[in-house]
Amino acid sequence: MEKKYLFSPGPTMLPPEVLLKMAEPIMHHREPEFEKIFAEIREGLKYLFQTKNEVLVFTSSGTGAMEGAVSNILSRGDKALVIRGGKFGERWGEVCKAYGIEFIPIDVEWGKAVEPESIRKALESDPAIRAVYTQASETSTGVRHPIREIAEIVNRYEDKVIVVDAITGIGVFDIPMDQWGIDVVVSGSQKALMLPPGLAFASLSEKAWRLVERSNLPKFYFDFKKELKSTKKNQSSYTPAISLFVGLRESLNMIRKEGLEPLFRRHEKLAKATREAAKALGLGLYAPDSPSNAVTAVKIPEGIDGERLKDLFFERFGITVAEGQDRAKGKIIRIAHLGYYGRLDMVMVISALEMLLKEMGHRFELGTGVRRLEEVLMEF
Amino acid sequence: MEKKYLFSPGPTMLPPEVLLKMAEPIMHHREPEFEKIFAEIREGLKYLFQTKNEVLVFTSSGTGAMEGAVSNILSRGDKALVIRGGKFGERWGEVCKAYGIEFIPIDVEWGKAVEPESIRKALESDPAIRAVYTQASETSTGVRHPIREIAEIVNRYEDKVIVVDAITGIGVFDIPMDQWGIDVVVSGSQKALMLPPGLAFASLSEKAWRLVERSNLPKFYFDFKKELKSTKKNQSSYTPAISLFVGLRESLNMIRKEGLEPLFRRHEKLAKATREAAKALGLGLYAPDSPSNAVTAVKIPEGIDGERLKDLFFERFGITVAEGQDRAKGKIIRIAHLGYYGRLDMVMVISALEMLLKEMGHRFELGTGVRRLEEVLMEF
Repeated sequence: MEKKYLFSPGPTMLPPEVLLKMAEPIMHHREPEFEKIFAEIREGLKYLFQTKNEVLVFTSSGTGAMEGAVSNILSRGDKALVIRGGKFGERWGEVCKAYGIEFIPIDVEWGKAVEPESIRKALESDPAIRAVYTQASETSTGVRHPIREIAEIVNRYEDKVIVVDAITGIGVFDIPMDQWGIDVVVSGSQKALMLPPGLAFASLSEKAWRLVERSNLPKFYFDFKKELKSTKKNQSSYTPAISLFVGLRESLNMIRKEGLEPLFRRHEKLAKATREAAKALGLGLYAPDSPSNAVTAVKIPEGIDGERLKDLFFERFGITVAEGQDRAKGKIIRIAHLGYYGRLDMVMVISALEMLLKEMGHRFELGTGVRRLEEVLMEF
Repeated sequence: MEKKYLFSPGPTMLPPEVLLKMAEPIMHHREPEFEKIFAEIREGLKYLFQTKNEVLVFTSSGTGAMEGAVSNILSRGDKALVIRGGKFGERWGEVCKAYGIEFIPIDVEWGKAVEPESIRKALESDPAIRAVYTQASETSTGVRHPIREIAEIVNRYEDKVIVVDAITGIGVFDIPMDQWGIDVVVSGSQKALMLPPGLAFASLSEKAWRLVERSNLPKFYFDFKKELKSTKKNQSSYTPAISLFVGLRESLNMIRKEGLEPLFRRHEKLAKATREAAKALGLGLYAPDSPSNAVTAVKIPEGIDGERLKDLFFERFGITVAEGQDRAKGKIIRIAHLGYYGRLDMVMVISALEMLLKEMGHRFELGTGVRRLEEVLMEF
């Protein structure tokens, strides 16, 4: 018997209730029953995004919504400010490049959060910057960027917007869109939303919609204006991933039932316990100063082969953790705790980590990690 | 008890085997097991598309692949020839417009197939035309266009390609991509592939890949070149709709087991029997001369309210049929028979049609349609 466990920051483990709901015979997307589901989803997403704005849903990977947040917001000649502190920050730059948008990168050391001050200066020195593109939680490094502070800076300008990739942020920690004045929030289904990959989300402030009105970059499938019109009729512009929508209704209901405060508190608890357990095992954290509660990036100790550790997780315990990407490859493993995860899930993964590290020659006392984990879990 | 039946041309009814497979715990898309599934899918799609070329898979609605077939194939200054004989033909024009591509429409009366001669003339008179965009099966009218003949004409040119939206063609009737020299074929998952919506497909000939090399239109998520690179490593460029991929492996296996010839023959049988049954009930066909075997568009007889008929299908029998779109609204109903449909499914829908037409005052002898259906089914 081989049980399998996902501790990757997307896809994440899924509630069986959601899986079974999606396995029901498929319905037609123009039926009143589906439109009722669509209406419920709209309300559930507004609750989750903490916004009065509509949240658009696209059948695509999260990257599709990122592309839309460039092609719908910007116009030829606009410049973008791109916070690059990891693989997903780099992706903002790549999308800009694909659309011929000149972007100014703010390169942040991997594992560190961006300094808001650097953004203030950049905006001051170049009036052609129309939008600041950032992550709420940089999945590749486990860093949380100071969105509230960045939004405050951008909000001083009438004609500039902040665009936040919150793909591993939404549903994990507090990012109140309206309260903080965030102009664009994008997200994806396979993270805290407890669904398979295949849906992407985008929500826009009034200020952002004004930029959409003047945007002249080409777009079709990810046309935000057209999708807003359809959304208001409880429809998608094109045939949607019906089964994922049906699952989304379920997972949004689960989130609503738990409530945002307890949801964020649960993620904080799991994340803090994971970080403390790693430290108790003598492991360093890749993002010690501003860690994201979505995923913990743990440094591989000297003398241990990181890729081998990741492979052994799967071979010995059926556990998928994520390795480091690009310049972090071989240096870290990333343990996710966003979405359908409880306290005892973290016990499993830390216990497996202990057994593997012991086998690979790392020196520590067996049980130390789990003990520290339990201590932190009991504090909450 | 209320049983429900889909006779819409997408989404279509799904095999329970496929639904259950997709409800299994989700796996990670970078696991060797998923890459094995991906490799099987590549082979299965090549078999289905009858091509040696790779078939790219995108997490999106079919429209996403249509957009990609414009933004990857064409370059600024290129012109497109667009066959517009229905709603989906019009969509090719809309995509071109979104990308600033000038297109020459060949407007075909709804319900008729395009005359290949008109394409020959258009290509002759305007050397700037780089690509001919058409449907194999125009879902909105139930027409089948003469793809083989169009491909023959386009193939006379070294520098021009034929792009076929085969979203309701692939897996329904014979469209041998390589043999006929079709340059681009796009399709979607919720049709003959017996899956929920959410995946789109695109396959390109060598000639088409040469155009991709020089294409300078912006693209990111639907970047064919990048996706080809990933595909060859049994990966998607961005997190794919994993559960749909898992289902796709199953449905491709089912198709392979049935075999292409029997698959096309089954669709031909169901389609012909449906058409004959409609005629036996005194109903006209919207596309009598070149009907598609994917969907039968039946004319609503004088004095019968078409929308009411469609609504009654659902209210009385739990059956979803499609109504006419745009200029065909209220004039036709469309009964689909593509994908997971057998002979007795058609008996159900024709029987329901009889009972509803009788109730609504159409004059005919009850049972006439089903009798004719049975006769045709028994001929095969």
